[in-house]
Amino acid sequence: MATALFPPELNSKRQLVDDALSGYCEFDSDCPQRLAEAIRYVVLAPGKRIRPLLVLAATEACSGDVQQAIPAACAVELIHNYSLIHDDLPAMDDDGLRRGRPTCHIQFDEATAILAGDAMIPLAFEILSSIDDVSVAAESCKVLARAAGASRLVGGQVDDLAAEFADRDVGVLEKIHRRKTGALLTASLELGAVSANAGTQQRNRLVEYGQKLGLAFQIADDLLDFRGSQTKMGKRIGKDADRGKMTYPSVLGETESEMRLHQLAEESIAALEIFGDLATPLENLARFVVNRTH
Amino acid sequence: MATALFPPELNSKRQLVDDALSGYCEFDSDCPQRLAEAIRYVVLAPGKRIRPLLVLAATEACSGDVQQAIPAACAVELIHNYSLIHDDLPAMDDDGLRRGRPTCHIQFDEATAILAGDAMIPLAFEILSSIDDVSVAAESCKVLARAAGASRLVGGQVDDLAAEFADRDVGVLEKIHRRKTGALLTASLELGAVSANAGTQQRNRLVEYGQKLGLAFQIADDLLDFRGSQTKMGKRIGKDADRGKMTYPSVLGETESEMRLHQLAEESIAALEIFGDLATPLENLARFVVNRTH
Repeated sequence: MATALFPPELNSKRQLVDDALSGYCEFDSDCPQRLAEAIRYVVLAPGKRIRPLLVLAATEACSGDVQQAIPAACAVELIHNYSLIHDDLPAMDDDGLRRGRPTCHIQFDEATAILAGDAMIPLAFEILSSIDDVSVAAESCKVLARAAGASRLVGGQVDDLAAEFADRDVGVLEKIHRRKTGALLTASLELGAVSANAGTQQRNRLVEYGQKLGLAFQIADDLLDFRGSQTKMGKRIGKDADRGKMTYPSVLGETESEMRLHQLAEESIAALEIFGDLATPLENLARFVVNRTH
Repeated sequence: MATALFPPELNSKRQLVDDALSGYCEFDSDCPQRLAEAIRYVVLAPGKRIRPLLVLAATEACSGDVQQAIPAACAVELIHNYSLIHDDLPAMDDDGLRRGRPTCHIQFDEATAILAGDAMIPLAFEILSSIDDVSVAAESCKVLARAAGASRLVGGQVDDLAAEFADRDVGVLEKIHRRKTGALLTASLELGAVSANAGTQQRNRLVEYGQKLGLAFQIADDLLDFRGSQTKMGKRIGKDADRGKMTYPSVLGETESEMRLHQLAEESIAALEIFGDLATPLENLARFVVNRTH
């Protein structure tokens, strides 16, 4: 397997996203300084920015303008980052390390961490609702709101927390990750399509790509946790197994997980056929997800 | 002072809101049952529904249609209710009783309470973004997102938590409550105006009314806490003073707080002059806020 280098053409886009996020996380004097610091500490930490890059690559696949999709790219990253803060809380996964740094509630305190996450959700919708084209604004809010809601992101986290008590079944596992990881990845692709005013067929294909990629992403994550090194992952590893959580290697075994990962990646790329060469960035992202080492 | 009876014409509107909220809090099978139960436990608890009633009364003042404003009325109530759940958490105000019943983290558990709140924020934006008129949808999302964000609702809560260490100054106190209580009340009025496609002058007057009412509301709450009974309030009373929190009676004294409350209520009603008789429900709400006994 090739080493997972980050596709170089994506680095400049990542910079666009980082700059825009930094701008969105400037607050006026009515925002308490400690709250602003906590939000910036998390949002501006070095991250892969997979979701924003999916938004931008999806909009390009639909012949849209990358600049116009930047607000959506930042909004979905804010939702992802809030979910990391809350997932790490003592009452949830109780994690002290994230991206190689102390988690938000360790660096600040629990109340600040909860409230930082709470503020990042409406910020995402403030950004989307400020998009000039009101149809795009409203549709983008709807897509992200559904993905972040009780039947998707949050529901997946609830079931993931309960999963140590559940039957070890790949169906249960996929239902968790279709919501916990998959919903936001799929929403990223839909947001890119909405920004480009794409048609139903394009949007459906992107959703299909996103659903496959979402499961592939989770299998890759589980495999990295299973055999990874803490340094590269920037978080405590082996923790899922320690805690009796279901993971793909623990349910399917390492070899079958690896096979399933590659099969899903192939299928995700196959869903992109109608886009021709415009889908190259999406294909590269799929390959990166499969081959990443951290 | 007259006894604070709930204005009778508002009871039927409250029923409309309660029915709509119950519908919005029906979830599909992808939502874990425990999560759905926690959300319904909080949202469908008997409440005064002050914010939804402000949305509806504001839309009426602007000659809008009450039915069309129901989504906005429910959205703002969801944001209010999420903030109650999170404020009650052990890491925040650590409260076990709310509206006469165990708080969400006591009735369920801390993780479920955090996640129920987390799911209610995007639900509010899903409801608003689904409004048929996309301009109203986008503008409503923007108004609510700002009010719920780092410089308003959440910022006010951060400073309120820190206020036991702050100078006892009425300016500090008003800055907290302008954001913690005032922002959502003002947003409620703006949402009503947006739903009615009201002009700038109408919207500005409603904001002025909302700002005065927001402070009046907080003074009334502090006075009730100061001299109230736990049974009527449905929550632990005297708790603010016990914990050394700044309140209006503790900063200004009971008599001056009472005077300020009535002055603000008068001023809030004066701001409604341009609306003529259409503002009667808003005037009644202001009187109710001042005179309420729980």
